[in-house]
Amino acid sequence: MCEHDLHLRVVLNEPLYGGNIGSTARVLKNFGFHDLVLVNPCPIDKEAWMMAQHARDLLGNARICGSLQEATADSNLIVGTTGARGETTGRHLRIPAYPPERIREKLNCKSGCVSIVFGREDHGLTNEELMMCDLLVSIPTSDEYPIMNLSHAVSVVLYELCDIVIGDVPLANRSDLNLLYGHIEDVLRDLNYPVHKRHKTALMLRRIFGRAELTAREVSTMRGILRLTSYHVGSQSGEGSADTRSD
Amino acid sequence: MCEHDLHLRVVLNEPLYGGNIGSTARVLKNFGFHDLVLVNPCPIDKEAWMMAQHARDLLGNARICGSLQEATADSNLIVGTTGARGETTGRHLRIPAYPPERIREKLNCKSGCVSIVFGREDHGLTNEELMMCDLLVSIPTSDEYPIMNLSHAVSVVLYELCDIVIGDVPLANRSDLNLLYGHIEDVLRDLNYPVHKRHKTALMLRRIFGRAELTAREVSTMRGILRLTSYHVGSQSGEGSADTRSD
Repeated sequence: MCEHDLHLRVVLNEPLYGGNIGSTARVLKNFGFHDLVLVNPCPIDKEAWMMAQHARDLLGNARICGSLQEATADSNLIVGTTGARGETTGRHLRIPAYPPERIREKLNCKSGCVSIVFGREDHGLTNEELMMCDLLVSIPTSDEYPIMNLSHAVSVVLYELCDIVIGDVPLANRSDLNLLYGHIEDVLRDLNYPVHKRHKTALMLRRIFGRAELTAREVSTMRGILRLTSYHVGSQSGEGSADTRSD
Repeated sequence: MCEHDLHLRVVLNEPLYGGNIGSTARVLKNFGFHDLVLVNPCPIDKEAWMMAQHARDLLGNARICGSLQEATADSNLIVGTTGARGETTGRHLRIPAYPPERIREKLNCKSGCVSIVFGREDHGLTNEELMMCDLLVSIPTSDEYPIMNLSHAVSVVLYELCDIVIGDVPLANRSDLNLLYGHIEDVLRDLNYPVHKRHKTALMLRRIFGRAELTAREVSTMRGILRLTSYHVGSQSGEGSADTRSD
């Protein structure tokens, strides 16, 4: 990937049916993409090769990973897909789930590697997997039958993202982002932020920064602030008196 | 259908694989639609029922027709889907093929029955079938591999059309439109319009009116003009000296 390029990767996390893997490969090629990564997939069977049709080359080149972390390690942005729009529990975890057109708007004129992660056919992405994502996307389906077939969901998302305008605003690196998020948790701990709210609040901050498409410079500046905070709080050990509202 | 309503119908013309029919039924239900019509389909086999998943009711209610004409008889607007974007031959036949988002814009605030027609998995719609359509839609796919799986194409189109704002501008009836198009051919004949260009020009006019989403009143007014033209030309039999440029 050149420095000023927007590279789109489709990650199928533990897909259960070869037919869906093959269909997904075809959809990628239909929309001009080529980077398909499979995390612990079912066997690439006859059905997979049949459904791939003229995208068998792309299916053959799909990278197979042992974990979602490995699959997205070099991604500047990780976008998770979810059918549930989180009206009930786990608000910080799922909200906001953007419609695909909003993701297109957000990615316009950016550069970097963006992984779009699709979950298992039966249960989607687990809460742990959703937590690894910076941004969530949800296709606006009918309440009567909201669950789409995996490769159909891929079609809709790639259709929206296939005509993104590539720009020169570089997204922050995954490793810098991970350091930022780790640093946030450290600071919350240093601040004696209530243990039972700490994780939820860290996730809320992750969602805020995730949807802000941070640049490298912004991440660097924020980490500087966090370092300074840790330093001062540390020098007044035990005096953490921060605001502890998590909502 | 109530008078002020936009009703969307999906017509699969001679589909070859049961799996695609079942998948299409599921996609309709995913996006809140329910009117599926099949023209001379392959048998609704085990694969079809399996792929329909929780849309088996919709699949069971699909209407089966013996011709595309029968399937679209009561449609105010017939939208044909095409992979080929007609850069070479048959310009009037295929151009303009709009991207799905333009069809959404065109249908916003309209009322009536709109049939979206999808062709066979192998050869799409024939020229005769495309001629029956008022408007054409084409998904912007990659030149390297432009041909999408049937049910994936349905997904993309229905995704675009699922949030149309229903309005109260009633589209013209199919029977009135057919009378208009028939009348146009009559007038071209009365005008001694060159025989070899007549069909092409009639089709061009059909495309122009097709993309103009005519109302009943507009069709009525134009038929009045054509009647008057026929009357005057008829009274000067043999003196047709019309402009014969077809492009």
